[in-house]
Amino acid sequence: MDTNVSVLGLGRMGAALAGAFLAAGHRTTVWNRTAGTADTLVEKGAVKAGSAAEAVAASPVTVVCLASYEAVLEVLDPLAGELAGRSLVNLTSGSPPHARERAAWARRYAAEYLDGVVMTTSSSVGNGDHLVLYSGSRAAFDDHRDVLAALAEPVHLGTDAALASVYDTALLGLMCSTLTGWLHGVALVGADGPGGNETATAYTDVATRWMRSVGGLMTAYARQIDAGRYPGGDLTLDLHRSTTDLLVHASELRGVETGLPRLLRDLTGRATAAGHGDDSYARLIEFMRTDDQG
Amino acid sequence: MDTNVSVLGLGRMGAALAGAFLAAGHRTTVWNRTAGTADTLVEKGAVKAGSAAEAVAASPVTVVCLASYEAVLEVLDPLAGELAGRSLVNLTSGSPPHARERAAWARRYAAEYLDGVVMTTSSSVGNGDHLVLYSGSRAAFDDHRDVLAALAEPVHLGTDAALASVYDTALLGLMCSTLTGWLHGVALVGADGPGGNETATAYTDVATRWMRSVGGLMTAYARQIDAGRYPGGDLTLDLHRSTTDLLVHASELRGVETGLPRLLRDLTGRATAAGHGDDSYARLIEFMRTDDQG
Ligand SMILES: NC(=O)c1ccc[n+]([C@@H]2O[C@H](COP(=O)([O-])OP(=O)(O)OC[C@H]3O[C@@H](n4cnc5c(N)ncnc54)[C@H](OP(=O)(O)O)[C@@H]3O)[C@@H](O)[C@H]2O)c1
Ligand SMILES: NC(=O)c1ccc[n+]([C@@H]2O[C@H](COP(=O)([O-])OP(=O)(O)OC[C@H]3O[C@@H](n4cnc5c(N)ncnc54)[C@H](OP(=O)(O)O)[C@@H]3O)[C@@H](O)[C@H]2O)c1
Repeated sequence: MDTNVSVLGLGRMGAALAGAFLAAGHRTTVWNRTAGTADTLVEKGAVKAGSAAEAVAASPVTVVCLASYEAVLEVLDPLAGELAGRSLVNLTSGSPPHARERAAWARRYAAEYLDGVVMTTSSSVGNGDHLVLYSGSRAAFDDHRDVLAALAEPVHLGTDAALASVYDTALLGLMCSTLTGWLHGVALVGADGPGGNETATAYTDVATRWMRSVGGLMTAYARQIDAGRYPGGDLTLDLHRSTTDLLVHASELRGVETGLPRLLRDLTGRATAAGHGDDSYARLIEFMRTDDQG
Repeated sequence: MDTNVSVLGLGRMGAALAGAFLAAGHRTTVWNRTAGTADTLVEKGAVKAGSAAEAVAASPVTVVCLASYEAVLEVLDPLAGELAGRSLVNLTSGSPPHARERAAWARRYAAEYLDGVVMTTSSSVGNGDHLVLYSGSRAAFDDHRDVLAALAEPVHLGTDAALASVYDTALLGLMCSTLTGWLHGVALVGADGPGGNETATAYTDVATRWMRSVGGLMTAYARQIDAGRYPGGDLTLDLHRSTTDLLVHASELRGVETGLPRLLRDLTGRATAAGHGDDSYARLIEFMRTDDQG
C-alpha cells in the first residue's frame, strides 16, 4: 500500500495533521497559501509543494484542513482535474449540506470523497485517545485507513458524507450537556469555589467513576431504542421523576440555578404523565422530536 | 478485625446487601419486620435475629436499609441503648437534614454514625463496578471498611453526614443531564427509531468513546475550579458559544427539541457576553449560583 499523503492548509490543525503523518513515517507533501508556514514541517521531513495542484498530484490521498468551507471551495475548485482517480479527505469543519455538496462535486470529477471531523484540539492530535470520524466513500476509507490511523484509530460512520458533521454537532451537544450537569453538581455539593470545604476535584473523582455506570446505561438503552421497547426494570421514569423533583428542590434550597433541573423534571414529567412511568429513561427518545409532540 | 455485621430491613435492597455480606464470608445477622423474609438468607448462612435489638447486639456494625426515613426512626429510636459504642450505617435514602439529624441522635447515644447511598439497583449490588458512598464518622468508616467492601470499594466523602445524600442528588442530576444530552444526539443523528438508516447502538459506540474525552475535561476543569482560574487554551467559551448556536439550528432543522440546546446556548452566551469568551467551560461554574447573578 502506498503511504504517500498530501496536506493542504497548515494552520494550527493542518500543521498538527501533517506532523502526525510525518511522525508515523508517511511520506508527507504539504502546501499552504502562505508559503513560509511549511518550513518547520520541511525540517521534520515534509516535502513542500510549489502549488496545491502539485501537492494533490504527489499522493493518492489529499487531506484538506482550512479555515472555512469557502476557503475549501477557493482552493479545491481549480483542482478538479488533478483529483480525478484520487481520494480527498476534508477535515475542515462544515455543515451537513457542505459535506453533501462536496461529495457530489467529487463524484462529478471521479474523485473519492471523505468528510471528517477531528474531535480534539490541534495540540492533542496524534497523542491520545481522541476521535477522528469519517463519512462518505467507503473505498477511500478502506484504501487509506492505514495513513489515517496516524491521527487516531479511524472510524467510518457511513456513506452519507454529512454524517461526520452531524455526529460532530451531536457529540459536542452531549459534551456541553454533560459538562453543564457536572458543573451543576459541583455547585450543589458546595465545591464551586476556592476556599470552601468541598473541592471540585474530590467531587469529580467520584463523578468520573459514576460516569462509567452512566455509560453502561447509554449502551443498554441504545439497544432498547433500536428495538423500540423500553422496559424500566428497577430504574424507572417514575424514579427519575422524583429524583429530578428532588434536584429542583435541592437546587432552590442551595441557591443553585434551576434551569437545567427544571428542564429534566419537565421532560421526565411529560413521559410519566403520558403513562410511561414504568419504562426506562430510553423512552424519552420519543419526546425528542418536536414534530411528534404537537 | 471482627467481621460480624447486622442488617435491619430485608426489602429488595436490604436483602441484596445481606446477600453480598454473606457472599464475602462475613457472619451476617439479619432482621426484618415481616419475619418470613429472612428465610432465604438463613438458607445461605445468615443468622436470624428475634428482634431488631438482638440484631444490633450481635455485631459491632449494623446496616439499616428501610423503605423511608420514618421507618428508620420507628425502628431505631427504641434501640439507642443497644447502639452505644457500636456503629450504625444508614443506607436508607433520605435528605441531608435527615442525615444530620440521625448523626446528632447517634452522637447523643455514643454511637458512630455513617450515612450512605447505594448508587445502583438492588440486583447489581456486589457484582460490578458501582458506587456506594459514605459520609459521617471517619472512625466507623475506618473500622468497618473491610466489611463494607463486600458491597463495593467504599468511598468516604467527608465527616458531614449530609454529604452522601447531597452527592446522590448531584450525581443523579449528572446522570439525567448526560442521558438527556445523549438522547438528543441520538435524535439529531436520526437514530431515534427502529427502521431508520442510523442505529442508536452505532451512535452510542462513538458517544461512549467520546465520553472518555469529556471525562478528561471534567478532571482538568475541576482543578481550574479549585484554583479559581479558567484558562481556555484552544477550547474556549467562544467556540462553545458557536457550537451551541449550531446545535440549536441543527435541532430546528431536523425537528428535534430545542429546550436543552437553547439552555446551553443561553448559558454559554451569558458567559461570553460577560467577557469570558477566552476562558474554558469551567468558568460557567460562576453562573451556577442564583444568588450571585441578581
Ligand atoms: N485548531 C483546532 O484545535 C481545531 C479543532 C477542531 C477542528 N478544527 C478545524 O480545523 C480547521 C482549520 O482550523 P485551524 O485551527 O487550523 O485554523 P487556522 O490556524 O486559522 O488556519 C487556517 C488555515 O486556512 C488557510 N486559509 C484560510 N483561508 C484560505 C484561503 N482562502 N485559501 C487558502 N488557504 C486559506 C490558512 O492559510 P494561511 O496560513 O495562508 O492564512 C491556514 O492554513 C477549521 O475548520 C477548524 O474548525 C480546528
Ligand atoms: N431497590 C433498589 O434498587 C434501591 C436502589 C437504591 C436505593 N434504594 C433505597 O433502599 C431503601 C430500601 O429500598 P427497597 O427497594 O429495599 O424497599 P422495599 O423493597 O420496599 O423494602 C422496604 C423495607 O422496609 C421495611 N419497612 C418499611 N416500613 C417499615 C417500618 N415502619 N418498620 C420496619 N420496617 C419497615 C420493609 O419491611 P417489611 O418487609 O416488613 O414490609 C422492607 O424490609 C430505600 O431508601 C431505597 O430508596 C433502593
